[in-house]
Amino acid sequence: MATKIIIDTDPGIDDAIAICMAINSPSISVLGLTSVFGNTYGELTAYNALRLAELSDRTVIPVARGSDVPLFIPIQNLGTLVHGDDGMGNSNLPTPKGEFLSLSAAEFIAKTVHENPGEVTLLTLGPLTNLALALRIYPELSNQIKKVVIMGGVVAHPGNMTPVSEANIARDPHAAEIVFSSGLPIVLVGLDVTEKTIITNSLLQEVFKAKSPAVELLKKIIPAYQHFFAQYYSMNGSFFTHDPSAMAYIFRPNLFKTRKTSIFVETEGRCSGQTVADWNNKLEKRTAVEVCLKVNSRGVLDVLKNTLTT
Amino acid sequence: MATKIIIDTDPGIDDAIAICMAINSPSISVLGLTSVFGNTYGELTAYNALRLAELSDRTVIPVARGSDVPLFIPIQNLGTLVHGDDGMGNSNLPTPKGEFLSLSAAEFIAKTVHENPGEVTLLTLGPLTNLALALRIYPELSNQIKKVVIMGGVVAHPGNMTPVSEANIARDPHAAEIVFSSGLPIVLVGLDVTEKTIITNSLLQEVFKAKSPAVELLKKIIPAYQHFFAQYYSMNGSFFTHDPSAMAYIFRPNLFKTRKTSIFVETEGRCSGQTVADWNNKLEKRTAVEVCLKVNSRGVLDVLKNTLTT
Repeated sequence: MATKIIIDTDPGIDDAIAICMAINSPSISVLGLTSVFGNTYGELTAYNALRLAELSDRTVIPVARGSDVPLFIPIQNLGTLVHGDDGMGNSNLPTPKGEFLSLSAAEFIAKTVHENPGEVTLLTLGPLTNLALALRIYPELSNQIKKVVIMGGVVAHPGNMTPVSEANIARDPHAAEIVFSSGLPIVLVGLDVTEKTIITNSLLQEVFKAKSPAVELLKKIIPAYQHFFAQYYSMNGSFFTHDPSAMAYIFRPNLFKTRKTSIFVETEGRCSGQTVADWNNKLEKRTAVEVCLKVNSRGVLDVLKNTLTT
Repeated sequence: MATKIIIDTDPGIDDAIAICMAINSPSISVLGLTSVFGNTYGELTAYNALRLAELSDRTVIPVARGSDVPLFIPIQNLGTLVHGDDGMGNSNLPTPKGEFLSLSAAEFIAKTVHENPGEVTLLTLGPLTNLALALRIYPELSNQIKKVVIMGGVVAHPGNMTPVSEANIARDPHAAEIVFSSGLPIVLVGLDVTEKTIITNSLLQEVFKAKSPAVELLKKIIPAYQHFFAQYYSMNGSFFTHDPSAMAYIFRPNLFKTRKTSIFVETEGRCSGQTVADWNNKLEKRTAVEVCLKVNSRGVLDVLKNTLTT
């Protein structure tokens, strides 16, 4: 039976890659996309989510609009330098045809989980604002969501927003702290593993040979992402697999080695957005998170290539 | 020529080991000890410093009393669980004969450095309160101290006070931030290396065969330290070499592999006391610290054994 997932996303170029991996794969059933601010403004990520939902061969995937702002802190440090002002590499994509659901992202998550208790995996690729709101309205979700796979955070590696924080968590640390203290079963796919798997340009060119609406879209938007990594990380056409790694976890969790620990999110001061791993149980107890610490990178890249080209 | 050092210390059982390594070694000239609160209350660490100063074969080492309280936060989380209420394993040592200098620790550091500009290495084994005060009174010290070797902090390893902080820094984070922003040439000997070198009980028993007042004292106080590590770390008579590792750096810096980075100390919230390494230069520029990341543990243990037994 196909794995039922909701993808909470702020597309975002690597979000687009991850979503394209899932939408035509028979082993995954995408019940919906929910959008959130992050890689660019929320209005733009919402329309990008609609565009991505329309790439499915099978059916148009429902899209629910979510938060345009963090729970508590001001909106800041969006990812437009990385993803372009439009979140899609400034690639002038046509207006999507579809429409948003009338439900908010938080309501859609709650409704879908209520209808499929214990069966829905939530994959989050952006700030955790929508999930935090859903948990505050429907606390029982913490027992009804099968698993939350979070692309975000970092525990033993430098951050990409500040020296100690990853962007998805740093953009809404309060939401993240609500999620990590909720008791939900969480897998953290953070920079500890996502920066260890690198997509090369030659792999990309192989992917680009495939003929599909998804690959056509990726061909338009990925060059801007490569350009960013060339400029800021001196990478030559290659780039880190942030969101695609989290999606690869959905397909093949065994590609990752995890270790369990409580995670606390700092919300104040210079370390705001840090995902603090309490390895030695110095703080109060909370439900342990499975933190990905090692990855079979070749396996992740195989999943990426196979899902995008078949 | 012997290396001129001042040891700023909160003895403390491992402080005692470190100090005993130096006081009779011909390659080190201990110009003085300065005391500070930390492993226990400041009045007790001061008297312990006097006791240690009297163990020298050569001359009584001057001792200047320093701070009993942190710069800004309340005094908290002293190390009495580890070191005993008296800081010496509750070993009922006799009252020392010596007296404190009339100068405060901060004044003694300043005076000694002014008299030996560019020649004095400061080894700190406790909270950085005395040095921070000295720097605020005499800012020119940042150009006149040859090097500060700090046992403290941690950059890529769990903390021992909180999940992200080491005890010496956590006990006075504001003082530490003053020191790390001062422009001083600093070497950080933190938990990243000190927890990688473990003294075994059999090595200790070899050391204990030596006949000297220093070893006689260590035989009295170390069992309490072993007891703590047995109880809290399930270590069987062995323990980490926190302060002795920093002292070993003074003798043989080549035993350590370091990497340079700016260090910022968090002073607020849950991450207070964290030494944040800005590996990717995301924050403002400051003078880089040499952070010890790898250690030749056998070499450190050789230094420890040789200095205590010859």
